[in-house]
Amino acid sequence: MQRLRRPFLLLNTPRRAQLHSHHVWPVRRPLVTCCSCSAPQRLHTSVNVGANPQLNPTTSEPPTPPTDHRALAQTHHLFITSPYSPGSPLLLPNGAYVFQKLQAFLRAQYPQFGFQEVITPTIYKKSLWETSGHWDNYAEDMFSVQGRGAMGQTQNAETGQDEEFGLKPMNCPGHCLLFRDEIKSYRDLPIRYADFSALHRNEISGALTGLTRVRRFHQDDAHIFCRPDQILQEIEQTLKFVGMVYDTFGLGPYKLLLSTRPVDHFIGTISEWDKAEAQLTTALNNSGREWALNEGDGAFYGPKIDIILKDSHGKEHQTATIQLDFQLPQRFNLQYQASPDELSSLPSEAPSSEDAALEPGNRRPVIVHRAIYGSLERFMALLIEHYAGNYPFWLSPRPAIVLALNQDPETLSHVAYIQSVLSGMESVETSEEARVQAPSTGEPVPPKPRPQKLNTIHLPIDADTTARPIGKKIAEAQMKKYNHIVVVGPKEVKSRSMTLEVVNQPHGGATEEVLVKILGRGLESGERKRGKITVNSTPAVARGYFEGLVDEFL
Amino acid sequence: MQRLRRPFLLLNTPRRAQLHSHHVWPVRRPLVTCCSCSAPQRLHTSVNVGANPQLNPTTSEPPTPPTDHRALAQTHHLFITSPYSPGSPLLLPNGAYVFQKLQAFLRAQYPQFGFQEVITPTIYKKSLWETSGHWDNYAEDMFSVQGRGAMGQTQNAETGQDEEFGLKPMNCPGHCLLFRDEIKSYRDLPIRYADFSALHRNEISGALTGLTRVRRFHQDDAHIFCRPDQILQEIEQTLKFVGMVYDTFGLGPYKLLLSTRPVDHFIGTISEWDKAEAQLTTALNNSGREWALNEGDGAFYGPKIDIILKDSHGKEHQTATIQLDFQLPQRFNLQYQASPDELSSLPSEAPSSEDAALEPGNRRPVIVHRAIYGSLERFMALLIEHYAGNYPFWLSPRPAIVLALNQDPETLSHVAYIQSVLSGMESVETSEEARVQAPSTGEPVPPKPRPQKLNTIHLPIDADTTARPIGKKIAEAQMKKYNHIVVVGPKEVKSRSMTLEVVNQPHGGATEEVLVKILGRGLESGERKRGKITVNSTPAVARGYFEGLVDEFL
Repeated sequence: MQRLRRPFLLLNTPRRAQLHSHHVWPVRRPLVTCCSCSAPQRLHTSVNVGANPQLNPTTSEPPTPPTDHRALAQTHHLFITSPYSPGSPLLLPNGAYVFQKLQAFLRAQYPQFGFQEVITPTIYKKSLWETSGHWDNYAEDMFSVQGRGAMGQTQNAETGQDEEFGLKPMNCPGHCLLFRDEIKSYRDLPIRYADFSALHRNEISGALTGLTRVRRFHQDDAHIFCRPDQILQEIEQTLKFVGMVYDTFGLGPYKLLLSTRPVDHFIGTISEWDKAEAQLTTALNNSGREWALNEGDGAFYGPKIDIILKDSHGKEHQTATIQLDFQLPQRFNLQYQASPDELSSLPSEAPSSEDAALEPGNRRPVIVHRAIYGSLERFMALLIEHYAGNYPFWLSPRPAIVLALNQDPETLSHVAYIQSVLSGMESVETSEEARVQAPSTGEPVPPKPRPQKLNTIHLPIDADTTARPIGKKIAEAQMKKYNHIVVVGPKEVKSRSMTLEVVNQPHGGATEEVLVKILGRGLESGERKRGKITVNSTPAVARGYFEGLVDEFL
Repeated sequence: MQRLRRPFLLLNTPRRAQLHSHHVWPVRRPLVTCCSCSAPQRLHTSVNVGANPQLNPTTSEPPTPPTDHRALAQTHHLFITSPYSPGSPLLLPNGAYVFQKLQAFLRAQYPQFGFQEVITPTIYKKSLWETSGHWDNYAEDMFSVQGRGAMGQTQNAETGQDEEFGLKPMNCPGHCLLFRDEIKSYRDLPIRYADFSALHRNEISGALTGLTRVRRFHQDDAHIFCRPDQILQEIEQTLKFVGMVYDTFGLGPYKLLLSTRPVDHFIGTISEWDKAEAQLTTALNNSGREWALNEGDGAFYGPKIDIILKDSHGKEHQTATIQLDFQLPQRFNLQYQASPDELSSLPSEAPSSEDAALEPGNRRPVIVHRAIYGSLERFMALLIEHYAGNYPFWLSPRPAIVLALNQDPETLSHVAYIQSVLSGMESVETSEEARVQAPSTGEPVPPKPRPQKLNTIHLPIDADTTARPIGKKIAEAQMKKYNHIVVVGPKEVKSRSMTLEVVNQPHGGATEEVLVKILGRGLESGERKRGKITVNSTPAVARGYFEGLVDEFL
């Protein structure tokens, strides 16, 4: 039984000495790997895994440099930065839309994987960060917070009323507080807390870049509190979750890297490590994915699996990560009432049973830190470059624009009606009704305020009713990469229809399938022009097609 | 033309001197009314408006004291507090669920009211707060932030690299940065930014209480940047929005209070104020709601409308607020390219046209600060006490529980199947399939990981498969105020059905209508027992009924 009581080995080590032997991180600030919550903040990190004979590079072709996400962000009005808050990007409506779709997508998946969201504080007193070890070991990366008034918390004050705060760089300590609020039984585990909180880390200002090197970011952070015998199941499920997410975005291929017990410095027993690593290995084997071993490269507090993603330009990124943690449960004295089976197992085999703070009949849970996107900001940067403006419809801040062919009141009224139906603002019946009541001035009818249903997918459909030539409007819409262009003129007004062109929709084949299904017929030859699909339909049918695209994540 | 250049009058005034003459705030810390973003953080504020002859108290009966929201929060596992972050409640899964439903509800409404969400930083450098006036005038309420490392921002440093930050107490300055990022034309207005960011205000620790007196909270904050001639339309729409929201929650009645130009201290011209007040008055008259005038009680920077809500226990609360602001547009030098009509109006009538910083042909927008819930935490506290655990289904963290009558593997398997269908985890077809493939052990089948659709309404359906007597399980479920109890025994297993009891659903009549509609028949006499409805149905029908309840906000 080998045991090391020196906590936070990796964090105590000067960061510049933490280069992993099998990785090359060609950036000036090396990687701090204290848990998944500290997933690196860079996008342009190239992971050279060639030194590991078991891991084949996914390609030998030189990578194509993508357009920088900051340039694309300007074209598509995604975010701005400000000298008033360096490293904290301000997301414009289009950027916030993409950000929230990413959040909504994971939220929709959480129930089937058993995650429950929690909402936790932004600032915690110094003493919490001392318990977790961050105050001393993560000092350079943290911001401190003090009240400015007479009653406020002050720097260097004693524990208690006037103690200063730390701005959270990670969610784990807060989740430990939630876990230990009530006594948990072995039957209650696993407990899986998910949290999209804003996190702050004090990157040096010279290193700050767009969405990739930031001071304020959000993770799709989660902590699984489980029994040691539940590790396999949790890791398997997490790997399935990762696969499902990356498949949905069309990202990949990716490889999995298992980092195991360091030779010298680790906490816990070798038996615990062996069992945990065996479960990770089984999970990796069962995943059907390519994986490699980084022997001895785990953190001192537990083994981990990193996901190395190759983007469409050939660059590799470390994104998702799954890390086991035997340490935080000790630091926060987390316990659960063990099962009879666990209690009857040999003391030397019972994880942490020799821990003096454990009450009789209790055991320590294991914490799995996991993030699938990692930093949402960084993942967004990756997607911005990956799609280069050609967003799939469901994620696109510019899914469609309605162009008026002329300035006739009837045309403008029909444009407003189409915009309303396509956006999902009102049911078609209501829109029809509102339209009938429209004054002859052609002014768009303000929608009657009644609650929109919670499950309505609202689409930000734009309209261009300026008095410019239609050719100019179409050119501009194409430049802005709208997925669809709708043209409305006298013909459409008369037939109460709309002409829909699919101009910029990835997954062309699948898109056509959805369209054909909603139309209930195959496409005619006249509906394909210059490789693009143009159909005349009613707004209701087009809305059905749009909903189909969202349902299929196209 | 009367003009006062002294900025932040209200904020400069010592807070204890800011008692409004017509209000009695029986708490020791008076109200700071710098904008809607500073809506007061208290719930138990009793607003005595009897001194104003135009505003009748809505009742003369003595209020019934409700159960304190902190006690209810314990019963329903909504949130905890921690000495590690006083005033920053930690929301448990149930509390986070309610919080997110509140957010989701407003988000679903934003498109029809033209609001676009943005995501803005948590910390800004001191110089931003100096521009906005908060650094000096809101000092006592603010937290300051410094980097702890050598490269971090330090206290009292000069403007620039090492300058300290302020933790944001309000969103307005950030939204001003977004507004002025690109030149706006009169045609672009109004622009409406919404933001659910976490905000921090340094309340003294002795005053902190549950969700009502907090240091960290979230607002349904929004800022409308509009032309002076758009005020009427914006206020009318906002009042409609307020009405729709409060009606949905069954809150009210409420009264509206218009506060107008102070006699002495104000910025802008009398003509500007008169026009703005005329628009507010018209909007109030058109609202069809009771309203009253608080003459001369507006802030120095603009008139405002406060909403005084009476809860079901007879207490009155100031919740929503709509405030015009002529000042921040000046401080941030916000401009838009004016229309020819605006430019041809008389200089003395053109708002702020004499402002030296205005470029030729430009005008200042007006900012409308508005919040409908106010603080989400405080609104949640109000709802917790209002519903006292009897949440409407769509908002309930405990919408239904499935109880197993015995421990037979077939029963447990059927329970898992029902739980899965009711929660919306899988389509019924998939569940059926999974069920057929279920091993005879009766273990619940893990759902196949495939992306859940974005518009799926997931319901947190619980199950109780413990070996306790069914009577005990039912009693516990009733005590926990589940809206529905589902009992599954041999009869249900055989007929592949479920027995659903509506035990704790407000809006009984409307609920029955939804049930009758999905059943396609009226209720039989045997389906009403002891005033409660119990029906046998298939899981798919029950899911349809649940979806109907959500759609109707029941």
